Amino acid sequence: MIKIRAQLLTAEAFAPFGDVLEARGAPDKQINQGLCGRFHDRAALDFDGGRAGISLFKAEPRKLPLTLEMVERHPDGSQAFLPMSQDPFLIVVAPGGGGKPGRPTAFVTAPGQGVNYFRGVWHGVLSPLCAPGLFAVVDRIGEGPNLEEHWFDEPYMIEH
Amino acid sequence: MIKIRAQLLTAEAFAPFGDVLEARGAPDKQINQGLCGRFHDRAALDFDGGRAGISLFKAEPRKLPLTLEMVERHPDGSQAFLPMSQDPFLIVVAPGGGGKPGRPTAFVTAPGQGVNYFRGVWHGVLSPLCAPGLFAVVDRIGEGPNLEEHWFDEPYMIEH
Repeated sequence: MIKIRAQLLTAEAFAPFGDVLEARGAPDKQINQGLCGRFHDRAALDFDGGRAGISLFKAEPRKLPLTLEMVERHPDGSQAFLPMSQDPFLIVVAPGGGGKPGRPTAFVTAPGQGVNYFRGVWHGVLSPLCAPGLFAVVDRIGEGPNLEEHWFDEPYMIEH
Repeated sequence: MIKIRAQLLTAEAFAPFGDVLEARGAPDKQINQGLCGRFHDRAALDFDGGRAGISLFKAEPRKLPLTLEMVERHPDGSQAFLPMSQDPFLIVVAPGGGGKPGRPTAFVTAPGQGVNYFRGVWHGVLSPLCAPGLFAVVDRIGEGPNLEEHWFDEPYMIEH
């Protein structure tokens, strides 16, 4: 089984796949009499034939090493995951040339990091590494399945 | 000074002001081979002349009792606050008859609760009760100030 080592999530490494949402560096604006920093409009929301909505996802925690059997993608919209706890989660993405995913890349988040997958980016299912596994999700609300799955002929092993 | 006691946040009590975003009760859908519950499209996003965007807010923690001197509202859009930690935060809202806020109501959240203020609802500024004070915010990205402030002639005291 091909092993893939999860790396720490950075905006630079994640740039081909989506946005890293984090309060890093100076805020774009100070609001509320200087008591709050606003890191403004950090996700490229992109919906075809639908609209943005906020849902909550509650997922079972996983453990590394983890066997990756499939990835999925949403052809009609971006999808943002904002963790509602300070716990890390696992992110798996894959390039999409030719309609099939290429070799996956894995990341582990630091506390306070969320992500927004660009429309159509292959990614693994939501994989918190601790309870409570609770996330706010901003994705496309609309008609149609907006989901493709790809099951790998040979699974990958994601490890620390 | 008029004292206002903060109550525990419930969807029922908050209904005139906005949505409570929480993974409570049965999910609307099980996804990812049954490993994740989706609580679907739980916020009434409502934007006039703009679009939805995701920003991050990092705010200084406050302590109760707290002196409430002002509230604000956004006439052009709803505003959702999703805490990125499991810590409680303080919510202050006020009815809006006649263009001025009425007597405020205060809530303290439980872990895992976020809120979406309906468009135009008077509310206090973001008030985490603990560090890190980090929130994902879904609000209107667009032109114009989209902000009104009201300073009370006599402040209120918000207490436990």
